[in-house]
Amino acid sequence: MTQLPDLTDPGLYDHWADDVVRFCDTDQAGHVNNVAIAAYVETGRLMFDREVIGGIAQALEGEVFRAILANLTVNYLAESFWPGKVRIGSRLIKVGNSSLTTAHGVFRDTNCIASSTCVMVNRADGRSAPIGPQMRERLAVLLP
Amino acid sequence: MTQLPDLTDPGLYDHWADDVVRFCDTDQAGHVNNVAIAAYVETGRLMFDREVIGGIAQALEGEVFRAILANLTVNYLAESFWPGKVRIGSRLIKVGNSSLTTAHGVFRDTNCIASSTCVMVNRADGRSAPIGPQMRERLAVLLP
Amino acid sequence: MTQLPDLTDPGLYDHWADDVVRFCDTDQAGHVNNVAIAAYVETGRLMFDREVIGGIAQALEGEVFRAILANLTVNYLAESFWPGKVRIGSRLIKVGNSSLTTAHGVFRDTNCIASSTCVMVNRADGRSAPIGPQMRERLAVLLP
Amino acid sequence: MTQLPDLTDPGLYDHWADDVVRFCDTDQAGHVNNVAIAAYVETGRLMFDREVIGGIAQALEGEVFRAILANLTVNYLAESFWPGKVRIGSRLIKVGNSSLTTAHGVFRDTNCIASSTCVMVNRADGRSAPIGPQMRERLAVLLP
Repeated sequence: MTQLPDLTDPGLYDHWADDVVRFCDTDQAGHVNNVAIAAYVETGRLMFDREVIGGIAQALEGEVFRAILANLTVNYLAESFWPGKVRIGSRLIKVGNSSLTTAHGVFRDTNCIASSTCVMVNRADGRSAPIGPQMRERLAVLLP
Repeated sequence: MTQLPDLTDPGLYDHWADDVVRFCDTDQAGHVNNVAIAAYVETGRLMFDREVIGGIAQALEGEVFRAILANLTVNYLAESFWPGKVRIGSRLIKVGNSSLTTAHGVFRDTNCIASSTCVMVNRADGRSAPIGPQMRERLAVLLP
Repeated sequence: MTQLPDLTDPGLYDHWADDVVRFCDTDQAGHVNNVAIAAYVETGRLMFDREVIGGIAQALEGEVFRAILANLTVNYLAESFWPGKVRIGSRLIKVGNSSLTTAHGVFRDTNCIASSTCVMVNRADGRSAPIGPQMRERLAVLLP
Repeated sequence: MTQLPDLTDPGLYDHWADDVVRFCDTDQAGHVNNVAIAAYVETGRLMFDREVIGGIAQALEGEVFRAILANLTVNYLAESFWPGKVRIGSRLIKVGNSSLTTAHGVFRDTNCIASSTCVMVNRADGRSAPIGPQMRERLAVLLP
């Protein structure tokens, strides 16, 4: 994939997680702080890891997959305010040699307030390791 | 009121707010960190302020009420883990001369993982000020 | 001890820890959020645990001590603002049958913005357990 | 600038800010959580904004500059643990038509645990606006 899909389109996402905007997520600028939005992205990413990637990885036979976050990008698209709820959409968008890239959209109702990509690297013995053939095959099915 | 009601009894509470346990709420001890639980209490307290106390205070005629947090107590009753949701019950339990005390219970399903009391002081001109008669009358109705 | 010492007096404290006021510690009220102040208290308490209590507990012979937080109280004394540093003073103020109580003061320069007490309970086999005689003797030396 | 300088080289940075690793910055994986590292980056960025960019912007004659965060990238380079301190280096690395890009390195002693770039967009009347000629001239001096 050489071009990113539209990360602000809720139709891209097939996994959703919920979070709640906390008062302590706001800052003295009067809106939700950018670090809190990184926390919402984490909520989406880790529920996706747990509910989608983790399920696939557990069923591998003799093949280990353990991914850790290597890169985070967040695009801040709109101010957001307390109180309220957010929904975070997640989608696998790329499988590299030893890494996965996921895309995320943080939504207030249908308004995308932030989009994100996360690169997670497969690790073995303290270093990056190629994703094995079984895992690669199962991940390919999830790509857009 | 000289004795606290049972703050772990969900039947005490007539106002409920929701929060989500975030991965970043956990700490290296493997469970939800005590500071995150203080954030859940804040979610309950401020939604109660907004939806119950604030509504009452807005309708006062020529009487000002503006409360700020002066004291927080939290009792940690059970370990809690990611992921999951919490519900926070809130109830006004005391009206003093210039202060309110609220009680809160943080629940995972029916399990009370933490209870809390919060004292908020009415402020005017930078100092504590007696709660006016209209506000006092309306608050009295909310007491257990 | 039936009465608390003055927790706002820096002279009470013999252990100090540092923290930094982060922008994301502020909230839309324009000041440092009450949950962030609970985090500063945690910084003080856990550095005290690590550097004072932990050192004592490690040298026990055949006696186990493992304390977990059971109760937190915070008194909010003054508004605080970004940026800046805070210093947190800590002192053991009570040794009960199975619990310790520590006191904490959060200071901006010499101004005490919050005071706190924390009760930690000794745990063994998933329940509270009496503090052993060696630990008790060593803790007694630390009391005011 | 078509290529990023080495963001892990402390020699790149001419502005430094301090932060403290809090216990509640760790997560159940046993290390400092990725969201906390985004908070350290914010500490560096906003102290740089305040102490460098803000000083320049205040002295403009008849020209307004108000930047808000539009994009954050963080590269996670090494695990980090509680307790300890971090230093965050900051440097302006690009001036676009209506945006600035800053680079940041988060260091434990001399070990760069994370690098980051932040794009901030100049805003006027609720939309992005070109950076004026005075501001542009003063920013150019700060580039590598």
